[in-house]
Amino acid sequence: MRVIKTVSEMQVARHSLAEPVGFVPTMGYLHAGHISLVKQSEKDNAATVVSIFVNPTQFGPDEDFGEYPRDEQRDLAMLEKAGVDAVFLPPPSEMYPDGFSVLVEVEGITERLEGTARPGHFKGVATVCNKLFNIIEPAKAYFGQKDAQQILVIKKMVTDLNMNPEIVVMPTLRETDGLAMSSRNLYLNPDERKAATVLYRSLLKAKEMKQAGEHDTEAIRGALTGLIQAEPLAQIDYISIADSTTLKELGNVSSQALVSLAVRIGKTRLIDNLVLT
Amino acid sequence: MRVIKTVSEMQVARHSLAEPVGFVPTMGYLHAGHISLVKQSEKDNAATVVSIFVNPTQFGPDEDFGEYPRDEQRDLAMLEKAGVDAVFLPPPSEMYPDGFSVLVEVEGITERLEGTARPGHFKGVATVCNKLFNIIEPAKAYFGQKDAQQILVIKKMVTDLNMNPEIVVMPTLRETDGLAMSSRNLYLNPDERKAATVLYRSLLKAKEMKQAGEHDTEAIRGALTGLIQAEPLAQIDYISIADSTTLKELGNVSSQALVSLAVRIGKTRLIDNLVLT
Repeated sequence: MRVIKTVSEMQVARHSLAEPVGFVPTMGYLHAGHISLVKQSEKDNAATVVSIFVNPTQFGPDEDFGEYPRDEQRDLAMLEKAGVDAVFLPPPSEMYPDGFSVLVEVEGITERLEGTARPGHFKGVATVCNKLFNIIEPAKAYFGQKDAQQILVIKKMVTDLNMNPEIVVMPTLRETDGLAMSSRNLYLNPDERKAATVLYRSLLKAKEMKQAGEHDTEAIRGALTGLIQAEPLAQIDYISIADSTTLKELGNVSSQALVSLAVRIGKTRLIDNLVLT
Repeated sequence: MRVIKTVSEMQVARHSLAEPVGFVPTMGYLHAGHISLVKQSEKDNAATVVSIFVNPTQFGPDEDFGEYPRDEQRDLAMLEKAGVDAVFLPPPSEMYPDGFSVLVEVEGITERLEGTARPGHFKGVATVCNKLFNIIEPAKAYFGQKDAQQILVIKKMVTDLNMNPEIVVMPTLRETDGLAMSSRNLYLNPDERKAATVLYRSLLKAKEMKQAGEHDTEAIRGALTGLIQAEPLAQIDYISIADSTTLKELGNVSSQALVSLAVRIGKTRLIDNLVLT
């Protein structure tokens, strides 16, 4: 497995890889969710590249860029074991040299949910993915469903800018108690870790209500609000029941409604989502 | 010569072209300046693609998008004669389908000169070139020096987004009396056509003053202002003497100062520039 730290070395190495190339962009501190993306890429492609880059431009000034968990050696061992061909691990100065001044902006769907809660977040995400796709030139790129809005943003960027990669979405992996796997789960103390299951319990509640015939999103949102408020360590950022393509809030639950939650558990902000089929 | 009107056909046709591919993006109504870019591309590459697309997003609401000159048959005859391999001639709905919502923005250098005079212009330019580069995948793309700021914007986008094409800049071609070739020269009536030579005469005046030892940009700007104001049909939009990389206005003429002019001749807005070596 090659470990590459500069853009120019990555561009050279890229052209010695077997085609097609699959790509898994990550911010490191890998968990089984990331590895499931790697495994799918290895099934679909002749070579797989993983990037590890904690992208500063997608964090707000009051967010957790500085304390975001990092463990390069552990990540590299996991990726070596998973059979990855190359890891791209650039320092920020390689991705954003002095004088960097270009932004890729997806309008519309970024003005909701995470885009409202985290201003500028999706400009950072779109710009870094645009750069990574240009450097790695993958046939397919793999993302986890946990970041549902991120997937819509990246798909829209790829479509509207006529970029090459096919975006492949893989299911959210969960701990045995349902908590969605996330590098940020590390922040949770034991009490918070227990409280954090309220996100998935709420999503299941929404699913159950829909299956029992409840189609009024206000009724569902009300039930979820009650459930989360009953958890003393939890604080609701948003509960959204929206069209899974446009992210427009729904009055009635349609066949492809996306329930998205952002909830603070202590100081840690967690997100999760479920499509109500 | 293949004439292609859809993105998907262009993507298929692209992969049957000999490598490397050179690309000349144009808005049509071709003149000898465009053909000089085509000829250079043919020298440098195994195949040459030309696009003809009057890009609506780079025109302001009060600008000349509607009346911008178009003559598809004449353009195609010129390109056929020049030996071009493929012409990409998409309708606006191919480039901007309903719901299109992605922008590429170059900050900094777009906040001056044409960027100030034409708000939104360079977002349109950067976005359409980004799309065209992704569709055509050229090794090199060719631009004329007449649009000096456009070249800086596109080079910055390519560098910062790690795009592939090398940007090749070719000299401005001029009519025998010095007027820079431009599709917009068509708008000029005979009196305006004579008056329009004041742009190049002004650039030569700046060069002459520099060569005579004048380094004070205010003195040079003053002389150019006088020259243009003496022409009754001309109205100055801007006279800039700036660093040719950053476009920051200079107090003293340096070794690579760019003199840029935007002047209205009657209702027609013309630009021209010269690097004072």
